[in-house]
Amino acid sequence: MTELAMAPRLITLEGGEGAGKSTVLAALAQALRVHGGEVVTTREPGGTPLAERIRELLLHPDNADAPTAETELLLMFASRAQHVSVVVQPALARGDWVLSDRFTDASFAYQGAGRGVDAATIRQLEARFVGLRPGLTLLLDVPVAVGRARAQGRAAPDRIESEADGFFECVRATYRELAAAEPRRFHVIDASQPAEQVAAAAVAALDRYLQRMDRG
Amino acid sequence: MTELAMAPRLITLEGGEGAGKSTVLAALAQALRVHGGEVVTTREPGGTPLAERIRELLLHPDNADAPTAETELLLMFASRAQHVSVVVQPALARGDWVLSDRFTDASFAYQGAGRGVDAATIRQLEARFVGLRPGLTLLLDVPVAVGRARAQGRAAPDRIESEADGFFECVRATYRELAAAEPRRFHVIDASQPAEQVAAAAVAALDRYLQRMDRG
Repeated sequence: MTELAMAPRLITLEGGEGAGKSTVLAALAQALRVHGGEVVTTREPGGTPLAERIRELLLHPDNADAPTAETELLLMFASRAQHVSVVVQPALARGDWVLSDRFTDASFAYQGAGRGVDAATIRQLEARFVGLRPGLTLLLDVPVAVGRARAQGRAAPDRIESEADGFFECVRATYRELAAAEPRRFHVIDASQPAEQVAAAAVAALDRYLQRMDRG
Repeated sequence: MTELAMAPRLITLEGGEGAGKSTVLAALAQALRVHGGEVVTTREPGGTPLAERIRELLLHPDNADAPTAETELLLMFASRAQHVSVVVQPALARGDWVLSDRFTDASFAYQGAGRGVDAATIRQLEARFVGLRPGLTLLLDVPVAVGRARAQGRAAPDRIESEADGFFECVRATYRELAAAEPRRFHVIDASQPAEQVAAAAVAALDRYLQRMDRG
C-alpha cells in the first residue's frame, strides 16, 4: 500500500446539496489567482472525459439496474483514480493549484456513512488508488432541510440527490466527524448564511491557510 | 475482508483472443441442461445493463482519455461487483448453474500481468468485492499467433484486443500459472485444435467434474 502524501496545493470543497459550492469555488479560484499561480478547477466524480462518463453512470436516475453500494464505491474510485492520474498529479507536479469540488472525503460520507460501506475498505482504496490528501478542505455545512430547500429550484435531482433525508443526515454527520478528526486540514463553514458571507468566510479561511504556508 | 467461498455451480471459461470461447460456452450450456438444472450464461465485463455500460467504457477504442491500469482495474471490479450481486449470487442461491465467459482470473491475467498491477491488490479486491471462486474453470489455451490469426476475420479490435503481442504473451503465461497453482479448479484445454475437438474436450472435462460433484 502506498502511503498517503499531503498535497498542500490541493484544496477541496465538500458539502451536501444546496451548500453553495459553486459560488465558493469561483471566489476561491479568484483569490488563489490573486495570490499567484495557475489554478486548475475541477470536480468529482468527473474531471476528465472518461471520469465524466463514469459520473453519468453513477448519477443517472435510471433505477432498472442501479449500482449496489459496492459498485458505486468502485465506480467512484475508478473515476477518482483517473482524475488523480490525468489531472491532479500533473497539475501539482507543474506547481499549479488544484481546486476540486469534492474529493475522497465525499466517499467516506456518501458511500461510507450513506450507503453503509465500512470505512476500512474506503481507506484501503484511498491508500492504493489515490495516495494523497488535500492540504486544505473547506466543509460547507448546512442543515439538511435548508440545503434541500435551496436545491429545489434546480434541475431534476440525480440518483444520489433523490435519496431520503436520513441519508443526507448521515452524510452531514460524517462530514462533521471527518472535520473534527482532522482539524488542521478541515475548515468548517456555516453555509446556512447568505452566499456572499459563505464565500467571504471561505476566502478568509484560504487566506489564513496561505499565510500558514508562506510561514512554512 | 470477506473470505473467498468456493461456488461449485459457478463454472467459468477463460482464454485469450481466438480461443473459441463462444463455441465452447454453447456446448457446455447444452451439457449442463442435459445433466439437469437451469443454466444462466453470462459474461464479463458485463452481464447486467449497468455492467455492460461499464464494458463499453473499458473496451471503447477511443484513446483520448484511455483508462490508466488502475482505473481499468477498478472499472473491471465495479462491473464484476454488480454482476456478482445482481446475476451470479441470485442464480446460485436459486440452485442454478452459472456459466460465465471470463471472471476474476481475467483480472489477474489482463490487469495484473498485462498492465502490471500487483497481484496483492487484485486479491484484496477479489476478497472484498467478489467473495467467491468458481468450482471449475476451463482455460482455453492457444499460442498468441494462432489466436490472433483466428480473430482477424472478426469485427474491429476493441481497446484491449489492440494491444501488442507481448501483452498477450504475458496474459497467456499468467493464465497458465494460475492454472498450475490451482490444478483442482482449473482444467487447461489445448485450443489450437479444431473447434469441435476443443468443445468435446471441454464437455469431457465438465462431465468428469459433474461426476466428482455427484460423488460428493
